[in-house]
Amino acid sequence: MDQIILGLSVITSLGVGLIGTGYMGKCHALAWNAVAPVFGDIERPRLVHLAEANADLAAKQAKALGFGKSTGDWRELIADPEVDVVSITTPNAFHPEMAIAALEAGKHVWCEKPMAPAFADAERMAQAARISGRVAVLGYNYIQNPLIRHIGKLLAESAIGKVHSVRVEMDEDFMADPAALFYWKSEASSGYGALDDFGVHPLSILSTLLGPAQQVMADLAKPFPTRPTQDGKDREVETFDIANILVRFADGVSGAIQLSRSAWGRKGRIAIQIFGSQGTIAYDQERMNELQIFAREGRASEQGFRTILTAPIHPPYDKFLPAPGHGLGFNELKIIEAREVMRAISGETAHIIDFQQGLVIEKTVHAIAHSHRDGCWVRL
Amino acid sequence: MDQIILGLSVITSLGVGLIGTGYMGKCHALAWNAVAPVFGDIERPRLVHLAEANADLAAKQAKALGFGKSTGDWRELIADPEVDVVSITTPNAFHPEMAIAALEAGKHVWCEKPMAPAFADAERMAQAARISGRVAVLGYNYIQNPLIRHIGKLLAESAIGKVHSVRVEMDEDFMADPAALFYWKSEASSGYGALDDFGVHPLSILSTLLGPAQQVMADLAKPFPTRPTQDGKDREVETFDIANILVRFADGVSGAIQLSRSAWGRKGRIAIQIFGSQGTIAYDQERMNELQIFAREGRASEQGFRTILTAPIHPPYDKFLPAPGHGLGFNELKIIEAREVMRAISGETAHIIDFQQGLVIEKTVHAIAHSHRDGCWVRL
Amino acid sequence: MDQIILGLSVITSLGVGLIGTGYMGKCHALAWNAVAPVFGDIERPRLVHLAEANADLAAKQAKALGFGKSTGDWRELIADPEVDVVSITTPNAFHPEMAIAALEAGKHVWCEKPMAPAFADAERMAQAARISGRVAVLGYNYIQNPLIRHIGKLLAESAIGKVHSVRVEMDEDFMADPAALFYWKSEASSGYGALDDFGVHPLSILSTLLGPAQQVMADLAKPFPTRPTQDGKDREVETFDIANILVRFADGVSGAIQLSRSAWGRKGRIAIQIFGSQGTIAYDQERMNELQIFAREGRASEQGFRTILTAPIHPPYDKFLPAPGHGLGFNELKIIEAREVMRAISGETAHIIDFQQGLVIEKTVHAIAHSHRDGCWVRL
Amino acid sequence: MDQIILGLSVITSLGVGLIGTGYMGKCHALAWNAVAPVFGDIERPRLVHLAEANADLAAKQAKALGFGKSTGDWRELIADPEVDVVSITTPNAFHPEMAIAALEAGKHVWCEKPMAPAFADAERMAQAARISGRVAVLGYNYIQNPLIRHIGKLLAESAIGKVHSVRVEMDEDFMADPAALFYWKSEASSGYGALDDFGVHPLSILSTLLGPAQQVMADLAKPFPTRPTQDGKDREVETFDIANILVRFADGVSGAIQLSRSAWGRKGRIAIQIFGSQGTIAYDQERMNELQIFAREGRASEQGFRTILTAPIHPPYDKFLPAPGHGLGFNELKIIEAREVMRAISGETAHIIDFQQGLVIEKTVHAIAHSHRDGCWVRL
Repeated sequence: MDQIILGLSVITSLGVGLIGTGYMGKCHALAWNAVAPVFGDIERPRLVHLAEANADLAAKQAKALGFGKSTGDWRELIADPEVDVVSITTPNAFHPEMAIAALEAGKHVWCEKPMAPAFADAERMAQAARISGRVAVLGYNYIQNPLIRHIGKLLAESAIGKVHSVRVEMDEDFMADPAALFYWKSEASSGYGALDDFGVHPLSILSTLLGPAQQVMADLAKPFPTRPTQDGKDREVETFDIANILVRFADGVSGAIQLSRSAWGRKGRIAIQIFGSQGTIAYDQERMNELQIFAREGRASEQGFRTILTAPIHPPYDKFLPAPGHGLGFNELKIIEAREVMRAISGETAHIIDFQQGLVIEKTVHAIAHSHRDGCWVRL
Repeated sequence: MDQIILGLSVITSLGVGLIGTGYMGKCHALAWNAVAPVFGDIERPRLVHLAEANADLAAKQAKALGFGKSTGDWRELIADPEVDVVSITTPNAFHPEMAIAALEAGKHVWCEKPMAPAFADAERMAQAARISGRVAVLGYNYIQNPLIRHIGKLLAESAIGKVHSVRVEMDEDFMADPAALFYWKSEASSGYGALDDFGVHPLSILSTLLGPAQQVMADLAKPFPTRPTQDGKDREVETFDIANILVRFADGVSGAIQLSRSAWGRKGRIAIQIFGSQGTIAYDQERMNELQIFAREGRASEQGFRTILTAPIHPPYDKFLPAPGHGLGFNELKIIEAREVMRAISGETAHIIDFQQGLVIEKTVHAIAHSHRDGCWVRL
Repeated sequence: MDQIILGLSVITSLGVGLIGTGYMGKCHALAWNAVAPVFGDIERPRLVHLAEANADLAAKQAKALGFGKSTGDWRELIADPEVDVVSITTPNAFHPEMAIAALEAGKHVWCEKPMAPAFADAERMAQAARISGRVAVLGYNYIQNPLIRHIGKLLAESAIGKVHSVRVEMDEDFMADPAALFYWKSEASSGYGALDDFGVHPLSILSTLLGPAQQVMADLAKPFPTRPTQDGKDREVETFDIANILVRFADGVSGAIQLSRSAWGRKGRIAIQIFGSQGTIAYDQERMNELQIFAREGRASEQGFRTILTAPIHPPYDKFLPAPGHGLGFNELKIIEAREVMRAISGETAHIIDFQQGLVIEKTVHAIAHSHRDGCWVRL
Repeated sequence: MDQIILGLSVITSLGVGLIGTGYMGKCHALAWNAVAPVFGDIERPRLVHLAEANADLAAKQAKALGFGKSTGDWRELIADPEVDVVSITTPNAFHPEMAIAALEAGKHVWCEKPMAPAFADAERMAQAARISGRVAVLGYNYIQNPLIRHIGKLLAESAIGKVHSVRVEMDEDFMADPAALFYWKSEASSGYGALDDFGVHPLSILSTLLGPAQQVMADLAKPFPTRPTQDGKDREVETFDIANILVRFADGVSGAIQLSRSAWGRKGRIAIQIFGSQGTIAYDQERMNELQIFAREGRASEQGFRTILTAPIHPPYDKFLPAPGHGLGFNELKIIEAREVMRAISGETAHIIDFQQGLVIEKTVHAIAHSHRDGCWVRL
């Protein structure tokens, strides 16, 4: 790690390695590229090394994304002494091996969520992180939205009093068409279905806002018991595209989570409602620059839900835009996340979900699945 | 019943008796008054007899609401041969005795929901209705909204394909303030809480749209374990202001119902989402003149939820307003309901929830409460 | 007028005559029927006499709408000593003759808007009202919406500081189809087009909220220069389906009004935005139970437009519904208007637009048309 | 310009110079940085040279933003043979001198809008562009929103038939507080006020969608005639924070534009409504990932405005996000714009507003101001 002295503080120019260049890999690359100009308070990370499935692809992508070296063997990247932090953006099944190797090589890790298909692997990853003493962050970027962070601030201030209940819906429609051909997402080997496919997002958000779930009880459902295959037959669907979940948090907070990847017309809905003794907060990811608050204040004749647009007063929106209401994009959350990863690496308090917290989320996912199987509440 | 000949059909001028003149009593009176001018296809009902707690109040209210006779003894009203149909709008505890007496006296009955606090009483009411052969209707007026009826039509036409899942939220905030004094709605004698207080509304709507629930599993919650009393102490709350319910309907339709009477800022929210294999329907009672539909049709680049405003093409809106988008009110649903009651009395097919269907709703309510108590699914 | 003594005040049972039984006639009849039960503070008006185009229709409608007498000659109704107030709901061309005759006969008049196609006739009506000393009210019912009245209260309280600008859009789509056959609304004899057809509604609302316009400048437009006729030809359109208007009010308040009866998808839009030195108010008639307010108050991080649902705290909603957020309908505004007409008749302060104020509105309409013709500002 | 051969086409690695590093400068830098990875079809531009007010600041910013060389004298940058295109993001008053010098030095120019305070200077810029034969683009980034571009596509396809009228509102609230101290935006030397401050944005959008305005007539207004100064006095405001404009386009299209920089609660509103013979399109920049369309199609009972979320099917959203409904941000429009600038430089058809089209917009601004001054229509 190159060290330079700027003013009073020691700033390190971080060496970045990137494994994987699919959509998320590109997203990491762009975030590493933009984080310094956007925030203006850190040294530009150096894009050191990029790994892809083969050397040619790696070379091409390194050029496009601005990385200095490239390799078809990710172990080379991990062995590179110039690399300080490794972005892992490969399919989930590769996460454990790569993350553990990187941590063991003394690198910091920024790994896309979820941790691993098997809980035992996730546990090994968390253990490797603990042992290494390195920063190990999961890519739960929704929690980086300035408005989600502002919700956290409002709750910490008791702006809606004591929270007593919560609801989250997360819906998309990429599995909504029963005529679409059977593919791997309907195979049991891919996991439970909507629950682990994207249920981890609501869990990550709730985790940062309310702490972990304590008891869960769920009903997983298959909207389409079979799906057609290419040869014109029907194959039985093995995963659940829908999950309806009852949750209990600490302090008597009750909740409900509903997930569907077969909800026609929903594209990126994460609708959150948090009810407190003095008010209500509502949010929908499809309008990620708006927050709704109802607070008991002022005259009854003018009480109502306020629609708040993200503004410079909701940090770090101010690092992106000088005027309110102009709108952040989904990809920009990753730039904020990169800044938090860097904060964690510098030993500052960071707003992240690390491997230990991530493990709790994965544990909750499996508990929810068990509650469905057994038809009764599962305690965490 | 006066009979007159108008054109080819025999039209009867219905004699109406009204018991109770609180908000709902007034609502019934106004509906009986308006139903003939609004619909223009029936004889004006005669407002014959009104009963209240005492003769003076009865006389005053009869004058105000336009009834001919008045009485402080509701049994006199039921004995009145001029009365053909009895509107019962008294507190729930009185429903069984009054409804059964009216039915036994050969009167048709239009009774406000729910049937009765005790399930056994509801059963007696349903039995009395069966034996009498008279029309016995419950005042579930939300189902009369032209848009709710239009949803039914759309489902019947498979406009969104085969329905596979559903969600309903019903929220108000009249119990949201923890500093409000303990009153009877927090006593166990009043029932379970949000569940029977207004959970019957979502159940009535789902019942007409999807049929009855088959299995239920619920988590009832108390946002405020105690509430203050007038003498400055705290009293333990005995009812549940929140209910989170998992539901399974026939044909593998899965669902979730969430109820809260402690949801700050929600005033009359009944948010319904119905997901099908070809589309989604959404509705919120707080915007009762709007319906949202997402249907897979046309180019992908212009697909989205359509917001439909009630219009003359959604009967019987046309009876109220000649132009679209001008807005029906909640009270006007009762006029539609009155027309349906009259249709039932004339032996026509009517869009109502009668005592038999009402009994299924009440049974579901109790099953939900049992599922919470026992922590497991209850089959209906 | 029957007089009775109730408590300390003299209450009169008002005798009502109704001329015309189209949609608006029915609306008046229902309002006269419902006003006493709804408000509970007045004697039930007596539905005395109904006039229609011929005696048969009149008799049939009198029966349906609950009137005692009927006639095919409206002059008989006006001569009836039992009639105290005359509802005039006939086509606009008949308003002057009927209203003037009624006023001269000493009756109060409740006449549907606008006053008359010709400004000279409107002037004669206003003069007749002045001379008669009787109550002469125009049926501008949008101003009766509890939320519109609440806007008035907010402005009077300077809740958004000093108003400096305003915008109103009124749009429907009943003339939006260029393939629809030419009919009388495209003939010059029907007036200017959107301007007088429904532009009077925004003017009536602005008039009660901000006072009359002082200067106007407009661009009237024909979206479709010709329309097809039944014989397959095209006929030149003589009226303007669109009007874009610049307005100046007293005290430097600037404004813009946009009208279109060819705005596909708009069904009853009256979108109002009022900007003040301390906040903004927004309203749309298509969501007539919602009001938006932005006020500078509290922390900047939670400022935003509040969506207020009509509630009992917005009188006279409380006379219709005991709970907030349940929704009034368009027709119910007429019941509120009936109460105001009765208030005016009893000599109380009433929230109405009388013939004198109505004349100012009609004058403004003509001034707007002249500003278009002359291409320059017109001062009122 | 380095040239390399990739596949069949000649790709040039563009040398970029940046003058100015305020918010817009940073935005250009980030766009130049991200454009290649995002689009994946072009060579990464080289960030060659950065100029700022002095050498120190320039050096610091060059490091932060990733530029190789830096200078305190922008003329050095323009003389640099490695620089192919110059981003000009300085205050408007500097645009003419810098843009003309850059063009005369044979550089392409990407200059922030508007062109220049004085129309004569804008004319000189346009002339320099014409003579140079170089690409000269103005930074009108709203037109790059995939949804605004989709509106253009829809209009070109006659998706809403023939357009007959249009409305645009652009509102912010940075001048809404009458207690805020007088500053340069209230001085006549800064221009007309809202009109040139941000009115050029609606004009740029309308220009790409409908072509240039042909006649204009406006009312400019001062919501606050005076504003306080630091010494406790009041100073007369010389600019107009509000502009209400009537517009006529070719083919009888009528329109209205309303601008306010004193509209409390509006943060980045650009509300567009386009009315056609077969439908309506509506858009609001505060919800820049949503588009509303009403089209006459299907059954009347399900017609309504559709809310369309940006999706990969609306290019180039697909270059940023693989899933629909996840949301682009305002800053990302600049990346799209950078791609279009590069397209123009390669001689491809590009979606830009060049200096010639920009001149028409500036001309329209001045015509609007004249129409206000003279109180009559101005023809362009």
